[in-house]
Amino acid sequence: MAKKWVYSFGNGKAEGDGSQKELLGGKGANLAEMALLGLPVPAGFTITTEMCTEYNRRGKKFPPELTKQVEKALAQVEKAMGKKFGDPKNPLLMSCRSGARQSMPGMMETVLNIGLTSKTIPGMIAKTGNARFVWDSYRRLMQMYADVVMEKAGGIEPAEDMGVRRQMERAMEQLKRSKGYRLDTDLTVEDLQTLCDTYKQIIQSTLGKSFPDNPMEQLWGGIRAVFQSWNGKRAIAYRRIENIPDDWGTAVNVQAMVFGNMGEHSATGVAFTRNPATGEDAFYGEWLVNAQGEDVVAGIRTPSPLNEATRPEGNTEPSLEKANPKTYKQLHAIRDKLEKHFREMQDIEFTIENDKVYMLQTRTGKRTGPAAVRIAVDMVKSKLITPDEAVMRVSPAQLDELLHDVLDPVAEKSASRLCTGLPAGPGGATGQVVFTAEAAVEWAANNKKVILVREETNPEDVEGMRAAVGILTARGGMTSHAALVARGWGKCCIVGAGELHVDLASKTLRVGGETIREGEWLSLNGTKGAVYKDRLPMVAGAEDNPYFKQFMAMCDKIRRLGVRANADTPADAAKARTFGAAGIGLFRTEHMFYGKGAEEPLFKLRKMIHAGSVEERKAAVDELFPHVKSDIKATLEAMDGLPVTVRLLDPPLHEFVPQKEEERRKLAGSLGISLEDLEKRAEALHEVNPMMGHRGVRLGITYPEVSEMQIRAILEAAAELIKAGKKAMPEIMIPVTCDVNELKHQKKIVDRVAGEVARKFGMKRIPFLYGTMIEIPRAALKADEMAEVAEFFSFGTNDLTQMTFGFSRDDVGGFVPDYIKSSLLPADPFQTLDQSAVGELVKLGIERGRAARAGLKVGICGEHGGDPDSVKFCHRVGMNYVSCSAYRVPIARLAAAKAVVEEKRAQSTKPAKKGKQAPRRKK
Amino acid sequence: MAKKWVYSFGNGKAEGDGSQKELLGGKGANLAEMALLGLPVPAGFTITTEMCTEYNRRGKKFPPELTKQVEKALAQVEKAMGKKFGDPKNPLLMSCRSGARQSMPGMMETVLNIGLTSKTIPGMIAKTGNARFVWDSYRRLMQMYADVVMEKAGGIEPAEDMGVRRQMERAMEQLKRSKGYRLDTDLTVEDLQTLCDTYKQIIQSTLGKSFPDNPMEQLWGGIRAVFQSWNGKRAIAYRRIENIPDDWGTAVNVQAMVFGNMGEHSATGVAFTRNPATGEDAFYGEWLVNAQGEDVVAGIRTPSPLNEATRPEGNTEPSLEKANPKTYKQLHAIRDKLEKHFREMQDIEFTIENDKVYMLQTRTGKRTGPAAVRIAVDMVKSKLITPDEAVMRVSPAQLDELLHDVLDPVAEKSASRLCTGLPAGPGGATGQVVFTAEAAVEWAANNKKVILVREETNPEDVEGMRAAVGILTARGGMTSHAALVARGWGKCCIVGAGELHVDLASKTLRVGGETIREGEWLSLNGTKGAVYKDRLPMVAGAEDNPYFKQFMAMCDKIRRLGVRANADTPADAAKARTFGAAGIGLFRTEHMFYGKGAEEPLFKLRKMIHAGSVEERKAAVDELFPHVKSDIKATLEAMDGLPVTVRLLDPPLHEFVPQKEEERRKLAGSLGISLEDLEKRAEALHEVNPMMGHRGVRLGITYPEVSEMQIRAILEAAAELIKAGKKAMPEIMIPVTCDVNELKHQKKIVDRVAGEVARKFGMKRIPFLYGTMIEIPRAALKADEMAEVAEFFSFGTNDLTQMTFGFSRDDVGGFVPDYIKSSLLPADPFQTLDQSAVGELVKLGIERGRAARAGLKVGICGEHGGDPDSVKFCHRVGMNYVSCSAYRVPIARLAAAKAVVEEKRAQSTKPAKKGKQAPRRKK
Repeated sequence: MAKKWVYSFGNGKAEGDGSQKELLGGKGANLAEMALLGLPVPAGFTITTEMCTEYNRRGKKFPPELTKQVEKALAQVEKAMGKKFGDPKNPLLMSCRSGARQSMPGMMETVLNIGLTSKTIPGMIAKTGNARFVWDSYRRLMQMYADVVMEKAGGIEPAEDMGVRRQMERAMEQLKRSKGYRLDTDLTVEDLQTLCDTYKQIIQSTLGKSFPDNPMEQLWGGIRAVFQSWNGKRAIAYRRIENIPDDWGTAVNVQAMVFGNMGEHSATGVAFTRNPATGEDAFYGEWLVNAQGEDVVAGIRTPSPLNEATRPEGNTEPSLEKANPKTYKQLHAIRDKLEKHFREMQDIEFTIENDKVYMLQTRTGKRTGPAAVRIAVDMVKSKLITPDEAVMRVSPAQLDELLHDVLDPVAEKSASRLCTGLPAGPGGATGQVVFTAEAAVEWAANNKKVILVREETNPEDVEGMRAAVGILTARGGMTSHAALVARGWGKCCIVGAGELHVDLASKTLRVGGETIREGEWLSLNGTKGAVYKDRLPMVAGAEDNPYFKQFMAMCDKIRRLGVRANADTPADAAKARTFGAAGIGLFRTEHMFYGKGAEEPLFKLRKMIHAGSVEERKAAVDELFPHVKSDIKATLEAMDGLPVTVRLLDPPLHEFVPQKEEERRKLAGSLGISLEDLEKRAEALHEVNPMMGHRGVRLGITYPEVSEMQIRAILEAAAELIKAGKKAMPEIMIPVTCDVNELKHQKKIVDRVAGEVARKFGMKRIPFLYGTMIEIPRAALKADEMAEVAEFFSFGTNDLTQMTFGFSRDDVGGFVPDYIKSSLLPADPFQTLDQSAVGELVKLGIERGRAARAGLKVGICGEHGGDPDSVKFCHRVGMNYVSCSAYRVPIARLAAAKAVVEEKRAQSTKPAKKGKQAPRRKK
Repeated sequence: MAKKWVYSFGNGKAEGDGSQKELLGGKGANLAEMALLGLPVPAGFTITTEMCTEYNRRGKKFPPELTKQVEKALAQVEKAMGKKFGDPKNPLLMSCRSGARQSMPGMMETVLNIGLTSKTIPGMIAKTGNARFVWDSYRRLMQMYADVVMEKAGGIEPAEDMGVRRQMERAMEQLKRSKGYRLDTDLTVEDLQTLCDTYKQIIQSTLGKSFPDNPMEQLWGGIRAVFQSWNGKRAIAYRRIENIPDDWGTAVNVQAMVFGNMGEHSATGVAFTRNPATGEDAFYGEWLVNAQGEDVVAGIRTPSPLNEATRPEGNTEPSLEKANPKTYKQLHAIRDKLEKHFREMQDIEFTIENDKVYMLQTRTGKRTGPAAVRIAVDMVKSKLITPDEAVMRVSPAQLDELLHDVLDPVAEKSASRLCTGLPAGPGGATGQVVFTAEAAVEWAANNKKVILVREETNPEDVEGMRAAVGILTARGGMTSHAALVARGWGKCCIVGAGELHVDLASKTLRVGGETIREGEWLSLNGTKGAVYKDRLPMVAGAEDNPYFKQFMAMCDKIRRLGVRANADTPADAAKARTFGAAGIGLFRTEHMFYGKGAEEPLFKLRKMIHAGSVEERKAAVDELFPHVKSDIKATLEAMDGLPVTVRLLDPPLHEFVPQKEEERRKLAGSLGISLEDLEKRAEALHEVNPMMGHRGVRLGITYPEVSEMQIRAILEAAAELIKAGKKAMPEIMIPVTCDVNELKHQKKIVDRVAGEVARKFGMKRIPFLYGTMIEIPRAALKADEMAEVAEFFSFGTNDLTQMTFGFSRDDVGGFVPDYIKSSLLPADPFQTLDQSAVGELVKLGIERGRAARAGLKVGICGEHGGDPDSVKFCHRVGMNYVSCSAYRVPIARLAAAKAVVEEKRAQSTKPAKKGKQAPRRKK
């Protein structure tokens, strides 16, 4: 028996169904599904995606059996629609539409009104009583057919501007001009007839063939054109971007035409089964009386609201609910049926032909983040879906939308984009431009909203960054200083906008031809990386949204992976708790030296750094001690017994060397040395590759007194809280280790100091854990040895990525964009964990670590901890927790829940493999 | 039965033998072996190393059965020597000496003349007729015993300067002063008797005990003292340095005393069975008539030569050969017997007591590099040893000695060391100090030998470094710029001499209290890292030594691993071939831009780097092309068909930015831009971490035209040579890759250019290989994918070590010395490959690479290729070749041969494991 290439649908029946998206494409499968549901779908048939592959395999030829299958299906359509294809009296018109597994909007071809010929035109006019409509349809068919079927699918490549469609457009323009018309609708029946004759001549002279007057020839041409458009330039380019395999192919949906433009009892519309902006459970859509689908899209006429409940402000058009209550009811019933059946919000297209509703399409509706969350929660409440399903319905990006104020999307659409950078901190911001951190602080103090624009930021800008509502830099990557800091605060930030020229001297910003001066307004979309001129209106975030809270609770019930936050101040810690963090996974000691109020500790740190002898350093360290202790204590207190991982001093010391002469003088004075000597000491701290230099534990090895001070600060802070009846659970984390001997070296200090502190406070022991970052490839490889000393690992995948790739996070701007543009890398590995190589080191580190210490607690801190794909990876490799910036905590909680659901689904589809899984707790 | 703790020897018998070094220590085992050989060894016994451990285990107590075993052994000694321990008439005196498995010279205690008591002194005087000798021996016994046995082993820690030995020394000084004596030998018998009385009082008053007058008490005290000295401070410190395990323990050798100071028929001496300086097959040694061993060592008297053949110039002392031909003959026969038996050059100690020769020690003799090579070759020729054994007899350091001129070791011994740095380039150098590269070039042009002293060097110093005979820097590590360049040239170099203060302005160098000015002389020992004041005499290297050539031929016959050289110029390539390189494993394109004669290409390179557009860059690239081609062509030609691996441009471009304003101006002029613009472009090249920045293949991705130029230069160079009837085998190597897509990207250019060049020269194809460095951890992890495109891998273990450890080669000076000092790292991983982690990545890279491409050629280039341990590792993991600097090629050839012998030995001692071994060729 010949293979089945054609699947019919219509009249309450269908040969396929909604599950067959691979074979029938998304559109075809859903048309079949709707038919099976008994919904009024114009009858038709789908030629499978397999035929697309077969067609190409055969050198663009159809197998003979296809003809029969199409003819048979066509006969069924004729029966269902009560019309006949090519019949002069009661002609059936058909459409040919593409439909791949995954939507590729506008990338492939469509041919409408197939079947209009010299024989059927009079019949159509007689039936519709609308000669203008019929001739206009004929003109459109010719135009589309000549272009798509005869020229493009025929492989003809005309000289520029000499394509058949372009010639036809010119002919129509000419006609309109000669008649003094402005609109296409000004053309009369006679004009259209003349135009159709002109079109026929153009076709003949350009393509050397005449426009087919045979309906079957038109039909096969349409089918051929759709299949062929799968390999059109646009489609191929789109597939590359979206990673759609070439061999998927498209299906062709051949369907009876219905007409919304058959008079006042006809209409066309699009609708969502719920409000796609808010998620409200209300039928929401637009319709146009006496119109075709493309009229709605074209936006020439203002569409009317479907019902009164969803009428937009200022819109006075009649709603379908009022204008035609019967039809509206019919449509509403369909809406209910679709939602109940698909258990998902639908985006539908319908046509009303003489008061009869026809469904042309249904598909899952796109929605905003707040809507996605509300719909998921509501559907669980009404038992339409399970919590597992709800979790899979909300994307991390949608959830992220709820956490930030954003630019008003409508205003943004029509705003003029100045340039684009990397979307480093999500959300939107609008403010007045300033060029220095000082100005940002000053202007903000005067209640001005400012956008801080810098070539690139450095730690000295932190205060200004905090004061600004948005940050924009010309240099830097997604993990540059500005990006890291901004994301940590949930602040809108765009980095690496290379087209910007910042001139600090004149306080101007040049981009393209524009010059923006200090005080002028800019607006940023940090989620997209778009920079706009002027002040755009904002829309508030919705983190207090009750649906958000209910949704997160659902996620938490499902997930097993713990989520902590990176936080460096008591305020950040409090924020992290409101976002649901179960602890601090990364408290960076050095951050207490940045920003407002940090002048004194920073000055003392600088004294320590510039010490000329162990004695000088010890003295400076002693001065620094109370600052460090009080900072850590406040954070431990804010977390109220939840674990707080304190990382000892990590960055190369040179970062803290004062840049300004005034500060250098003051420092030299305090150290009792000359400015020259100070500068020599500062110079000695300079390194060629500081990222791989004297930092992290290496500082603790060469200056054990610096480690000791920090360790004592941590343990005394904990002891003081416990003595006061409070809770405290510090975890001491050693950074940048590459060998167990480093851990042993620091452990000796920890053990000694822990004993001393316990004695001082009259306690038996201070509760704490001792562990390490795993951020150097060697540490991952030697994880078995590391775990003999470390009680926990925290993977620092930022640095691990740097070393594994040999990519300096600060310098990737010079080449990684080229890598991504040329598809040499699928993504910036600092944003999405490179699961293949960096991931191998992580897996290996966990395996080896747990082999040496069964209960080893394992987490990740750094940027990847808030990236959904990376979070899922962390779940799969058996980590105990991820830690990310506070604003990413909800994202991580969602991703962790998704990982569990994905795991369940994978397990239910394949036989369970026996394998040891490390015990895992939320921490 | 009680465990055997005591092994007797003497009288042609022995209970142990030479193979029992673990049990009896090196000295004890060899004494037993000599006894078994029938050599005249004073009888004695060895208490085993196990007793040392047992003694400590029992809390510094001996097991009771030891007493019996010692007494029994002592009785045998008495019998053998015909004397009795403690006998007033015919007293036997004994010595107690330590003897660990491995020699620990001077680190443990020795007690001599045990058995001298008030009862035996008269008997000794009667027997020897030398009262002075006996009283002096008694004094020495008391002095040694009180210090070692009673005070140190007794656990007494006196206040400084109040130790019993110090008091005794003061007493002797006082006596001499009161008598107006100058020398110890001026003391009369009566003086010595008085002194002995004083000593007894000092012992009593200081230690609260009297000096034991019982011979057995003395003996047990001596045994105890030796065991206890195993845990003395010096011994522990030495073991830490030499990595000797604490639980090895020492043996105690208790042996009858013989006396070389019993008159004109007695003597003592030390000798080597061959000349330890030259390796000549001639008995070589020194003796002193009527003397004890310590007199030879003390150097008060000038020793006589053993024979006429080895008489040093100017020495007129009578030789033993002439003075006592019979005894000399006896000794010579022993020498022959020892060499034949041990099949190795021996270092012996002997005593002649009344014309009777006694052997006190034999052990493998230390020797210079030239001697080691000659002895190995000679012994193979005389079939004493096999070539495998010969190869194991010469250490890499000894071979290295042959390749460089060195400081005269005698002069060096007495020279005053200024400071110590890292031994970056081996050999010696003496020259006048200059502080700038320009001065070095200028002075050298005037035939002056100069030492270039710099804070640290950079590429602009290269010409000065070439002109200098030695290089000394205050900063930098073993793989800093200076070190790499110097080693590449085989030039003496010391880096990171942190005590140096270089003041460029005043052209002075301060170190310790000294100030050295320009033009003053310094001498460097680059093998040790020692810096000396003044001009020291030099000894020439011996690379033309025929023994060297014969030895290397032996190595080559044994080894399987290929050895190539890193060379960047035709001259280097020629040098590499004379050292036996089988190809160039690393030709660094960028090196053609350094040094003399490179001004023009460097200028053009700078134009390329500072180009403002693709067009500008292309123009500069075209200008550069002929230089690159001619340089590569000359090297290919010099290698005459041996493979030459050309690495495409590797370093961050910022390295080439001109520093001097004059050069910047010239460059700006040539580019037709302002100095300001040039500086902006230069600034844009600056990177935070250039080692992980825009370099290597990343340049080739962003500037494909730069890759293309180099590829064309390589292939045209080869084509021109082949067309001219010559041979050329280039290998194109892509550096700093981390993903196969980079290789594919560059391969496209290679394939296209290869086609174009072949057409241009009318050839079918240009022979070449295409491959990559594996120097980024990710590349090793993804080696399977890399090998799908690469035909060869060259492991760049310098960078791989940097990334795996997160250690910047340029910055490790700040902490790695502390790491090594604190034993956190066993060695600088840039010198000796970290086999555990970096090695794991290498192994894994080879396995995965060969799994994807069976014939994958694998090598290593960079510093580890010349490190013997790392070379052995490369052999074991199945590489095809190592590549190192020309001067290290012989070392690598030796190490490769050693690896084979070690492998054979390991296989012969354990049952062969079945395992796949990758096929391997020399290349």
